Amino acid sequence: MSRTERAAPRPRVVIVGAGFGGLNAALALGKAPVDVTVIDRRNYHLFQPLLYQVATAGLAPSDVASPIRAIVKRHQNIKVLLDRVTGVDLASREVLMAGRRLPYDYLVIATGARHSYFGNDAWEPHAPGLKKIEDATEIRRRVLLAFEKAETAENAEERKALLTFAVIGGGPTGVEMAGAIAELAHKALARDFRNVNPASARVVLLESGPRLLAPFRPHLSAIVRRSLERLGVEVRTGDAVTQCGEHGVTLASGARIEARTIVWGAGVAASAAAKWLGAAKDKAGRVIVEPDLTLPGHRDVFVIGDTASIIQTNGRSVPGLAPAAKQAGNYVAEVIVSAVAGARLTRPFVYRHKGDLATIGRGAAVADFGWITLSGRLAWFTWGMAHVYFLIGFRNRIAVLLDWLWAYMSFHRGARLITGRTD
Amino acid sequence: MSRTERAAPRPRVVIVGAGFGGLNAALALGKAPVDVTVIDRRNYHLFQPLLYQVATAGLAPSDVASPIRAIVKRHQNIKVLLDRVTGVDLASREVLMAGRRLPYDYLVIATGARHSYFGNDAWEPHAPGLKKIEDATEIRRRVLLAFEKAETAENAEERKALLTFAVIGGGPTGVEMAGAIAELAHKALARDFRNVNPASARVVLLESGPRLLAPFRPHLSAIVRRSLERLGVEVRTGDAVTQCGEHGVTLASGARIEARTIVWGAGVAASAAAKWLGAAKDKAGRVIVEPDLTLPGHRDVFVIGDTASIIQTNGRSVPGLAPAAKQAGNYVAEVIVSAVAGARLTRPFVYRHKGDLATIGRGAAVADFGWITLSGRLAWFTWGMAHVYFLIGFRNRIAVLLDWLWAYMSFHRGARLITGRTD
Repeated sequence: MSRTERAAPRPRVVIVGAGFGGLNAALALGKAPVDVTVIDRRNYHLFQPLLYQVATAGLAPSDVASPIRAIVKRHQNIKVLLDRVTGVDLASREVLMAGRRLPYDYLVIATGARHSYFGNDAWEPHAPGLKKIEDATEIRRRVLLAFEKAETAENAEERKALLTFAVIGGGPTGVEMAGAIAELAHKALARDFRNVNPASARVVLLESGPRLLAPFRPHLSAIVRRSLERLGVEVRTGDAVTQCGEHGVTLASGARIEARTIVWGAGVAASAAAKWLGAAKDKAGRVIVEPDLTLPGHRDVFVIGDTASIIQTNGRSVPGLAPAAKQAGNYVAEVIVSAVAGARLTRPFVYRHKGDLATIGRGAAVADFGWITLSGRLAWFTWGMAHVYFLIGFRNRIAVLLDWLWAYMSFHRGARLITGRTD
Repeated sequence: MSRTERAAPRPRVVIVGAGFGGLNAALALGKAPVDVTVIDRRNYHLFQPLLYQVATAGLAPSDVASPIRAIVKRHQNIKVLLDRVTGVDLASREVLMAGRRLPYDYLVIATGARHSYFGNDAWEPHAPGLKKIEDATEIRRRVLLAFEKAETAENAEERKALLTFAVIGGGPTGVEMAGAIAELAHKALARDFRNVNPASARVVLLESGPRLLAPFRPHLSAIVRRSLERLGVEVRTGDAVTQCGEHGVTLASGARIEARTIVWGAGVAASAAAKWLGAAKDKAGRVIVEPDLTLPGHRDVFVIGDTASIIQTNGRSVPGLAPAAKQAGNYVAEVIVSAVAGARLTRPFVYRHKGDLATIGRGAAVADFGWITLSGRLAWFTWGMAHVYFLIGFRNRIAVLLDWLWAYMSFHRGARLITGRTD
């Protein structure tokens, strides 16, 4: 290599967000002749699909999170920046942070989504959602504290409300949370209290649509419902939440559920990326992108994962799932590598759906792989293996397997810490 | 058993604090004909000796904490109450909490100690101590964030201060923290950054006395010092801290250490128990008790562990160590069992010192068992085995062993999460 070649600056790829999409884009560029900077406001990649287990004391936060630096350390061309992006200057091609601007040649926005209360933001303090580690430890705190308060509650009505848990939203998060809370109450805590019987706790799963897990085939939704009911979860479909407060939930039918603990798993909205980019967005706030995942009119800006609204050339939209974000990350890396080489990838992004998986609890899950559907113990093993396999980091894999094995054998939950306020 | 016997109320033992002392007292009363209530403001027992590993990202919080309810669940005569005690009414024999009074026949105060700044409470925000889970995650946040900030620091001076870590206090906590931070910087993070070299981090251990680990024999103090220096820790003895602030530490000698991260391991003060009891206390705030651990003038009130100042009949004081608290808990249970049986235990409390153990880092520790002293790898294995053995709960033992094994083989640290604020 001559000195002149060496001096030629390498194209700069800036990736905002180290979720499934951003991290896969970065890793796929690890051997490419580009300089990559990954910006995230957290120092870890979060394995979102298992976060509900942190919220229900099955796993520790560090079981489901890996330091970004450790994940990318073998690639000398990847830098990690712990910072909060505040905007993008498309004209000067720079990413903006407080007191800092970072120029890019290619920009990948993969900032994900937050939970959304459909305009009822006042509900948030009463019904926290589950997106961050802090959300999970907060829900864990509330759930465990409810049992503690029930143990010393003065009157029966208050005790009953403390032992009622309402989970809003019948998607995978809601189903998994409801199942896990029911298991926690009915098994793990069963013998821990003297004045109350945790096994008498009431867990209600609320879904406004006609059935749970709408993306799955109807017979699997029915299996999930039955499995949850077997665990003691009360499932109410076809009744929307109209009010959510400190003391409980009111439904469209007029029904009222007195519950001191409410968990929100109903809706998500994309991050602020559409605003940064001044871009057209869909009603969930997602940036509408071209079939090659670029921002319309900007061949150097890509939006992927839960932040993007992607309509494939076959007319079908891409779901907000981890595998879709990963595939998009890999695709974008390919587009950038081609462009850097002076070529142009003409193949549009095509999402390959590998299947749907959801777990209900100990030994119960459903899987829909298109050509075959599974339920019960076999689906549960498949779910467990798939999740452990995709966990990043050897330590996490072993630690999670061990936590599961221990929980499975003993019905105990190891991570039952109430941290933060206890009053 | 006749109906009359059944109706006779059993003596009520109230234990405040579920540390080593309180928990051992409770468990030792698990088969006695008494009703035990354990009150703690946390729902978990904390294995304090390994807390520094949470602060330095080696272990997860749930590795070193076990739910109190799970520990005592097999004893139907033990109740657990999650609440904050505000005082004791010795006349009416009641423990006071916000809006609640709990009567006792026997009271065991085992509320432990907090760190103390010797009258310089203004130092606390700059130099957090290490007593609670939240202290550990806060120190972890500061240490990890210092490297992140150094990576993007604008000038060399600021970068140097960010990569300087001052640990105040040459007791076991200070020694372990300094060693663990040095290992984190010099090994675990070594290849994670692009602009700074974590291996160039400066870790300074400050001790006002003439040597580290004063309770150990001098030749072990010397070994510890050499081991720390081999790890890259700068040890300064015989120089007291006179000022502690946002930008660093000033010493009595006039020396100044510019450090953005300071950890306090210098002093502890007992909890508020002396005030609750209106009792005489020593200068560390510990309640002065009789040789049978009772409060003078109150044969039904016991004070144990770090809250008590115990002078044994041989004139020697009992050190503030976990084994001493455990022995005191067991002793008090014996006294109560005798009293309930109508007898009176006349043997005073005698502390049996099993030895001193302190670890410096990977493969290095010192042990002083009186009849033998150990150092190096053998002491380290002894330390590791002893700590894992005394961890409560099968899950914690296995999880901690696994974390250590993984860290040992890979030099990685798994629990490197910056939670809470990142700005």
